[in-house]
Amino acid sequence: MLTYDLTQRAQLSIYEYLYQCIKQDILDGVIAAGSRLPSKRMFAKHHQISLKTVENTYEQLLTEGYICAEERRGYFAASLGTDGRRSRYQSHIPFSAYCADNNPPCDADFTSNQTAIDLFPYDTWVKVMRGILSRRDPDMLKTVPFQGVYALRQSIAKYLYGFRGMTVSPDQIVIGAGTEYLYGRLIQLLGRKRIYALENPGYRKIAKIYQVNDVSWKYIDIDESGMQIDKLAGSGADIVHVSPAHHFPTGSIMPIGRRRMLLDWAEDKPERYIIEDDYDSEFRFSHRPIPALQSLNHNHRVIYLNTFSKTLAPSIRISYMVLPNKLMERYIQTMNFYSCTVSAFEQYALAAFMDNGYFERHIHRVKKYYRAKRDSMMKVFAQSRLRTYASVDEKDAGSHFLIHLNTSLSDTELKWLARENGVSLDCLSEYCETGKEQHAHTIIVNYSDLDEESFGRALDVLLLAVTD
Amino acid sequence: MLTYDLTQRAQLSIYEYLYQCIKQDILDGVIAAGSRLPSKRMFAKHHQISLKTVENTYEQLLTEGYICAEERRGYFAASLGTDGRRSRYQSHIPFSAYCADNNPPCDADFTSNQTAIDLFPYDTWVKVMRGILSRRDPDMLKTVPFQGVYALRQSIAKYLYGFRGMTVSPDQIVIGAGTEYLYGRLIQLLGRKRIYALENPGYRKIAKIYQVNDVSWKYIDIDESGMQIDKLAGSGADIVHVSPAHHFPTGSIMPIGRRRMLLDWAEDKPERYIIEDDYDSEFRFSHRPIPALQSLNHNHRVIYLNTFSKTLAPSIRISYMVLPNKLMERYIQTMNFYSCTVSAFEQYALAAFMDNGYFERHIHRVKKYYRAKRDSMMKVFAQSRLRTYASVDEKDAGSHFLIHLNTSLSDTELKWLARENGVSLDCLSEYCETGKEQHAHTIIVNYSDLDEESFGRALDVLLLAVTD
Repeated sequence: MLTYDLTQRAQLSIYEYLYQCIKQDILDGVIAAGSRLPSKRMFAKHHQISLKTVENTYEQLLTEGYICAEERRGYFAASLGTDGRRSRYQSHIPFSAYCADNNPPCDADFTSNQTAIDLFPYDTWVKVMRGILSRRDPDMLKTVPFQGVYALRQSIAKYLYGFRGMTVSPDQIVIGAGTEYLYGRLIQLLGRKRIYALENPGYRKIAKIYQVNDVSWKYIDIDESGMQIDKLAGSGADIVHVSPAHHFPTGSIMPIGRRRMLLDWAEDKPERYIIEDDYDSEFRFSHRPIPALQSLNHNHRVIYLNTFSKTLAPSIRISYMVLPNKLMERYIQTMNFYSCTVSAFEQYALAAFMDNGYFERHIHRVKKYYRAKRDSMMKVFAQSRLRTYASVDEKDAGSHFLIHLNTSLSDTELKWLARENGVSLDCLSEYCETGKEQHAHTIIVNYSDLDEESFGRALDVLLLAVTD
Repeated sequence: MLTYDLTQRAQLSIYEYLYQCIKQDILDGVIAAGSRLPSKRMFAKHHQISLKTVENTYEQLLTEGYICAEERRGYFAASLGTDGRRSRYQSHIPFSAYCADNNPPCDADFTSNQTAIDLFPYDTWVKVMRGILSRRDPDMLKTVPFQGVYALRQSIAKYLYGFRGMTVSPDQIVIGAGTEYLYGRLIQLLGRKRIYALENPGYRKIAKIYQVNDVSWKYIDIDESGMQIDKLAGSGADIVHVSPAHHFPTGSIMPIGRRRMLLDWAEDKPERYIIEDDYDSEFRFSHRPIPALQSLNHNHRVIYLNTFSKTLAPSIRISYMVLPNKLMERYIQTMNFYSCTVSAFEQYALAAFMDNGYFERHIHRVKKYYRAKRDSMMKVFAQSRLRTYASVDEKDAGSHFLIHLNTSLSDTELKWLARENGVSLDCLSEYCETGKEQHAHTIIVNYSDLDEESFGRALDVLLLAVTD
């Protein structure tokens, strides 16, 4: 049986990886011309992957002529002849470039924050996209306004009004290909010589963006209410980055008192701004949604950011920011030469998707799924032997929670032990610049892509680490 | 008859603008509920726009419930009731934000570099995109590798090998949402403290990108062979930006001697690099294509950039760069945390589009169209009265050419005179940092979006400016 090591695929999807492997083996003659490929069903079973994935792989190879199909007999490697050109560039692909991980296969991956992909409303998205494409509207081919397609900005404004209590104009909205991209624009807008403040612990990627952009930043400690304002005030920073609705990774919510203090801090000096990253505010399971900080401040000092990559699918790169009017004017003056980075078709499709109520329905469905999943994860934990040595910390929101573990292992040892036993995890201390000890022995569990059985097995693995 | 001033639409497409106007008028009660809208045919004729555009506008309004259709009677404004929510955010849209231009309607626009939109292979693109969507492949929803989808990088490598004589691996390719975006990444990769060299005259947007990124640059004069190497050597710059296959806007081609000198300059110091922007190399009308500078240098000192926005449609935001191996390693080390900025569906669609030969066919068709268009433009010029007072400068390539005019007007006066008479144009001197006088009285004609009649009328307008 043809066997490929799926743990070696690293960043490639299973589909892409298998497609590449089989193609390469046919090109290299490892699979001889005329030889029969395993049946799709057998191949899927053998690799423990979905039949659909194998079907897609075979179909792609068929379309490109690497294999042929014979009715009732199956699939066969095609005879390719000698094509110097093709093999010449093919020989340049070092698969090893993607393969850094020599660990045993991962049974439970706590680090994967892929949205529940099975919930993506494929049928509706396909219907909407077909509708957009079938318009064959030449206008959709023309340069998109630098802020993004007007119809989408309008749908977003409507959405923010209805679901986040924010009254904003489509003219304040800038659409971009991902939140990281918009962070880059904000550095250019606010200035590279300002000092930026980040939460400690907090989302680490922002510091990486600041680093490659030669921007200075300070880490400000958070407590259970979020960023500590006295420490912020003493830091010299003028721009602060927060996620008040659901902090990553602690999950804390900034209460109204702290919010007011933060806004007061910003109002204290003319060019101070708060960047509010509302990355998963949609997924709040009980009570009313937490209003956005932006909605308390009438467009003065809060820059609001959100993304559809989290709510729809990681591979759909559409994010947006809402700028205070003053900054929007500055953006128009200094940066309207930049083209919008999101292709028009997808912007029009998303606008139609939102306007028809599909987005709302999708969020509702995902939320229901997360809530049920979270509940069953809690049940698995409550029934596990680990419960005596650990506690769960979760805030009724989002797609991750924390586990505090009684262990004498260091976090590095804990991670290593888990990985050796098929569990991939990150610790809270990895998101800390200082105070790693204070936040030690705390595991972050992203559960959106996790099933109950492997979670149960993973909890048993963690038993290896505990101390009475 | 319902009349909207299409000159006020600025950055909006006609479709979007009309959609917004009619919607707003219905919301504001300017078009009363129940009142009949003009027939699509009449409305199109009245505004001198395509019937298709009006059909799309009406259909969108119909879908969203702003208008209703009655068989054989036509379209009527719907009765919306009072919806405070809707009107509240609606009232924030200042259309005036888009309307800076109070000039008379433009009869000929020499500045529009929109690709010939009528040539976009809508049917094929729709077919390919439908094929991609109908796979319903969950893998396509997952996070895309930071360099871009492998299948697309492979298609690009194949294309570059076949059409630009470049032997590159898919692993050297980084896909991004537009060339501007990739310029930003290059600044982060090469360093903000380096000095960058730009062509004078040359494409101005790059300087704007450097400016908002706090990067220093020097302008280096070009002659008919391109950048003057002695001036470059004396400038202190280590990174140089060129378009050797077809300089914008002069159209000059860098001959092999100058190319060698430029490569020698780069090899002279360890961290010198050449950024080769190959933006319209596909559109060379006669003789063999000019090989890419990159192909002379075996992946050492040349960073190659190209875009599909120019060849397919401005609203499709897919560009790529090919990095020398050394820089690719550095990119992986310092910037692999950045997510790819192009949505997966469009990357897979483009890969399939290329692999099936559709891209090649499309390029061939557009090239044929441009060549024929260029030829007929030359005929219009040869038959015009202006020919006695002007000469054309074109290099058998691309979608623009130059007209040198005998005039005693300054370029500012020339532009103003033209604009007052319905011709929108840019002069070569606007692309100069120094030496504006030397390049004065030279008009850039982007002809891809221009028709022969309006070009003829525009040449008559230019007669107003000439001196014997």
